[in-house]
Parts: sequence; C-alpha cells; structure tokens
Amino acid sequence: MKIEGKEYRTIWFENNIVKIIDQTKLPHQFIIKDLKTINDAINAIKVMEVRGAPLIGATAAFGLVLAILENNDQSFLKKSAESLISARPTAINLKWAVDRMMNKLSGVNSDKILAIGLNEAKEICEEDVKFCENIGLYGLKIIEEIYNKKKGTVNILTHCNAGWLATINWGTATSPIYHAHKKGIPIHVWADETRPRNQGANLTSYELNEEGIKNTIIADNTGGILMQRGDVDMCIVGTDRTLSNGDVCNKIGTYLKALAAHDNGVPFYVALPSSTIDWNINNFKEIPIEERNSEELSHMEGLDENGNLKKIQVYPKKSKAMNLAFDVTPAKYVTALITEKGVCEASSLGLRKLFNK
Amino acid sequence: MKIEGKEYRTIWFENNIVKIIDQTKLPHQFIIKDLKTINDAINAIKVMEVRGAPLIGATAAFGLVLAILENNDQSFLKKSAESLISARPTAINLKWAVDRMMNKLSGVNSDKILAIGLNEAKEICEEDVKFCENIGLYGLKIIEEIYNKKKGTVNILTHCNAGWLATINWGTATSPIYHAHKKGIPIHVWADETRPRNQGANLTSYELNEEGIKNTIIADNTGGILMQRGDVDMCIVGTDRTLSNGDVCNKIGTYLKALAAHDNGVPFYVALPSSTIDWNINNFKEIPIEERNSEELSHMEGLDENGNLKKIQVYPKKSKAMNLAFDVTPAKYVTALITEKGVCEASSLGLRKLFNK
Repeated sequence: MKIEGKEYRTIWFENNIVKIIDQTKLPHQFIIKDLKTINDAINAIKVMEVRGAPLIGATAAFGLVLAILENNDQSFLKKSAESLISARPTAINLKWAVDRMMNKLSGVNSDKILAIGLNEAKEICEEDVKFCENIGLYGLKIIEEIYNKKKGTVNILTHCNAGWLATINWGTATSPIYHAHKKGIPIHVWADETRPRNQGANLTSYELNEEGIKNTIIADNTGGILMQRGDVDMCIVGTDRTLSNGDVCNKIGTYLKALAAHDNGVPFYVALPSSTIDWNINNFKEIPIEERNSEELSHMEGLDENGNLKKIQVYPKKSKAMNLAFDVTPAKYVTALITEKGVCEASSLGLRKLFNK
Repeated sequence: MKIEGKEYRTIWFENNIVKIIDQTKLPHQFIIKDLKTINDAINAIKVMEVRGAPLIGATAAFGLVLAILENNDQSFLKKSAESLISARPTAINLKWAVDRMMNKLSGVNSDKILAIGLNEAKEICEEDVKFCENIGLYGLKIIEEIYNKKKGTVNILTHCNAGWLATINWGTATSPIYHAHKKGIPIHVWADETRPRNQGANLTSYELNEEGIKNTIIADNTGGILMQRGDVDMCIVGTDRTLSNGDVCNKIGTYLKALAAHDNGVPFYVALPSSTIDWNINNFKEIPIEERNSEELSHMEGLDENGNLKKIQVYPKKSKAMNLAFDVTPAKYVTALITEKGVCEASSLGLRKLFNK
C-alpha cells in the first residue's frame, strides 16, 4: 500500500539484506531499516520494529535466511529457530513460520540451503499477501451488505493495527476496508488509540490517512458510548492467535469492545489468515499472555514544539504499572471469522468445516 | 487526606480568596492556586484545575461567593450562576450546588448576602465530607465481607479519579478503600490510566501513593483480562450523574469495565453522594455528553529527561481525534449504589426507597 504516494510492502529482501519499515518510529519518522543478521531479526521482533502476527512470521522466516548467510550450519540454524520462537510468546504465526521454514531446511547440508530458505520465506510473504487479499474480498461482501441497507457512510471500529503494516500488504482487518474504499463505498473508521503503544493512532490512522480513508482516533474508552449511540455499524479486528474453538487472542482491550458490540447488537468480526489458528489449544488459559515493560505505559514519545522527537514520563514517580499485551475474546462474542477461505462461525465446527480439519 | 505527609482538603476559603490544588499540574507539580474572581472559578472548572462532580459543585458554590465580593448585585449574581452552570455540561452537581446557593441568595439585597453565601458554600463542603465519610463506612462493610471470605489482599479496580481529589475529602469510590486501609485490611488497587486525561494515573495512583495504599496503574484496556484471570475482587467507581432509574453517567470507559465485570461475575459498585442524582432524567439519551478538545488526546504532558514539564504531540499530523468525556453504564450492570444513606439497588425503586422520594 501507499506511503506518501509510493507503493511499499512492509518487508522485502535485497542484496542479502532484509529491509523493513521501522514501525517504532512511525508516525513521526518513516525509516527503512536494514536487518543484516539473525540477531537483528530477533531484536526487530522483540522491540517491535516489526509487529503484527503475519509480519512477525515473515520476519522470522527471513531471519532464518539471514542465519544461513551467517553460518551455514544445522546447529546454528536450530538455535536461531529457537531464539526466534521465544522472541515473543503470544502470536502463533511466529512459531508457525519458523516451523514451516525448518521443515524445508532441517537436514539440508548442501549449497542449495540458501535458495531453499529464501524461496520459502518469499513464498510465506506471497501467500500472506494473497490470503489478505482474499480476506478483503470476503469482508467486502459484509461491508457491501451494510452499505446497501444503510445507503450512507459505513462506520467501522477497529482496535490496534491489523492493517497492512501488520502484514505484508492489505492487512487483515483493514483489507475489507481498502477493498470497499476502492469500490467507492463511503467508509469512516473509528481507530482505537490502543494504549499503551498507540498502534491504532500511530499505525492504523497513519496508514488510512496515506490511503485517503476517513478516520478518527478515539481513546480506547470511547467505543462503548459510540455503539450505544448507533455510531458504529460494525467492528473488525485482527488476531494474534485464534484458538481451535473460535476464541480470539488479540491486542489487549479487544475483549472489551466485543462485549460492547454484543451489548449493542453491533456485529463484531475477526479477520485472520489461517496461519494465526492454533489448532492445538481450545482453552484460553493455556495461551502465554505476554507482559511487556511497564515503561511502555509510563513514558510516551512524540514531537516537541520544535518538531524534535522527545520521550517524557507521564506517570507519578512513585507509581508502578503493569503492561499485559493481549486479552482473549470468547467465541460467543464474535459474529464471524473472516479468513482467506471464506467466512465462518467462530466455533470449533465452523473452523473445522472451513479448513477440512 | 495527605500529600507528602501533610493534611489537605481540595478547596478552602482564606482572606476572601478561594484556594485550590491545581489538578492540571499533578502529579508532577503540587501547586496551590488562588481563585480571586468569579471568572477564575469558571475557568478553573472549564480547564479542569478542579474536577470531579462534588468538587466542581463546591467550586461553583465558592465561585458565587467570589461573585458577591466583586459585585453585590442580583443581576450580576444571576449571570454568574448561569455562566457557572454552563462551564461543564455533564456533571449534575454543578447545577445542584448553584441552585442550592441561589435558593439562599436570590433576592437578598442586604449586607448579609456575603455571610449567607459563605456559610452555604462551607455547608456544602462540610456536608460533602460527611457524606463521603458515610459512603466509606457503608463501602467498608462490602470490602470486609470480601476480605473475610478471601483472607487475602482485596484487589479493587477503579476507573478515573473518584478519590479525595474529586471531592473535598475522602473521595467517593476511594472512601471505602481508605476506611478499609485504616482498619488494617490489605488492599491493592488497579488504577485504570483513564485516557485521555490520565486521571487514574495522575490523580488516583498519586493520592493512593501518598496515603500508602498499594496500587498498580494499568491501561484502560487491561481490566477485562484481569477479571478473566480472577485478579479483581470488586470494582468501585464514581459517577458524574446518576439517573433516577439507576443508570450511571461516569468517565468514558466505565461502561466497558462494567460489562467485563458482569461477564466475569465481579461485583461492580458505584459510590455517590446524593447530590449527583438527577431525579428528573431516566433516559440516558437526555444527558448532554461533553465533547472536549481533541488535543487532550493528541498531545501529552510529562517530564523530559531533565525533569522539565514538556508537551508533546503523539498522533500523526494528518489525523483527527474525537474526545467524548463520559459514557453511561446501564443500571443492570451495577451491583449496587453506595450512598451516604446506605447501599441500594441501582434502580428507580432502590433509589426512591432509600431517599424517600
């Protein structure tokens, strides 16, 4: 998608270097960053220069290519795979992508290993783009239905960033929005700020601006009353791990919006490529919920009056804070899952039927 | 209550000047500010140097005393009363306090008007302190019951600041907490950050720190998963306007926490002095919900690395934001109302019985 009129993807491979958009610098600075080593890739995932379940997976895949370039040895590769998986605990795509790469790479001791790895990493990216496009086409039908009934601007609430910046292109939650916009359906997005890292403001509003889609940032507290007032026609969010029973583990606060949607009869959709489905877990208590540094809450970064990037401490000095990154929305509050294979009920049966499991 | 070991109230009258703690400067600076004119009082309410329904009411009452000192004329007084009421639209205490003052002052053309006004303003304050103390004693029983069952630290979640800084002393939601703490019951408070103005961090965590009560600041998004995990024993919040049917209009985001509490079987209490009850409204759509400047969202204030107060812009330049200040929690999600007269069901019947209406 576009930034300042130019088409980008979030990650690409060029001259043995992995190129990413450093998302910790957005929206104030647009910086293309080079990842040259496996440690660069692990660090990029940890400090969230890349984030979003599909993009984390793609970065891990390219990370293994960087590992091969550094040290063409199976034990180094295995260690690299383990380090990548433990870089962030909650999103399942990370493990999915590493496992997929290692299936191709384990035991390969020939010179071909680089070509095999690079091919598979690129394949993961192309597949994600295709899957996100499909999600967009299936989601478009849902938006069209609302538009045909309402005959006016469709107001869509989203939480965090499940936009193209969270994937390779199109996004998951935003793909239906981009497809609807391209079809001429008038759309307005309520972008939840998404504390503590403000991805809804920094990334979702930012990328929607760049694509010319109307949007308004709101505090995470605001969705409830907007729904009470009838100002939200639908919600769409992404997911970092979808359980086999249809429960959805996504950015902290998603659950609260799903409750409000349920209470006000607003449809609540979750968009996902199948790579985010964890077929092995059906009890949300088994998911490791990441706890991040509390400085993400107590400190904020932005531009001062001279346009310089500044970090300030916003909390009282004596206070402590706690920073959980995800919560779980029970399947019963999810109207439907929008996947690359179509739309299904958020349930064990719905998922198994769609994916022939 | 205490700040750095010294007892304060939030507002007092001294040598014909109204003294307040400037709450826009907390937690980074503790500044006592002088209000010398009716316009100072109106401005203090508007820019939220004072906030919290009971404290807004008290400031309005003292504001009318300042008006009398400026111009001992009934038409000036009437105009001042109207300006005060329109300073902020949602909290009903403001109108309640102004009406109460004007009942005593209207038509009084003697020299006694100053003494009458000052007496009534002080009475409003003393009554609020007494009412908040009663709320604390009734709420204490609820906390004690939980403690007696659990035999461990009672985890209480609160939203925004309904602390002593929102009243004259004790607070509404915090009064049961302070009373339980004084009785030796181990308490831990989850303080919702409360975007966009961060009153939960800046004021609630701050005042709990100063009283030595354990607390942890969390993003507004976090309460849901904490309740899913069983880490919240009860919620207590305040209210800016309680409808005659038991619906509660409070700081934006309260509704989302009430939904999560309901979904997880966590009791959700609302603490209020009767001055916040609007006996005339039983449909929440009739409440004027204040929309504030969107800069409260897009900009943040805090200390830079040199300890200087800095304001930074956190949102993308092209983005716009919307800043609604309150939402409404339907009575069905409120376990009970804790008032100065006792605990009652959040319903028309519950309120009418308790207050003989």
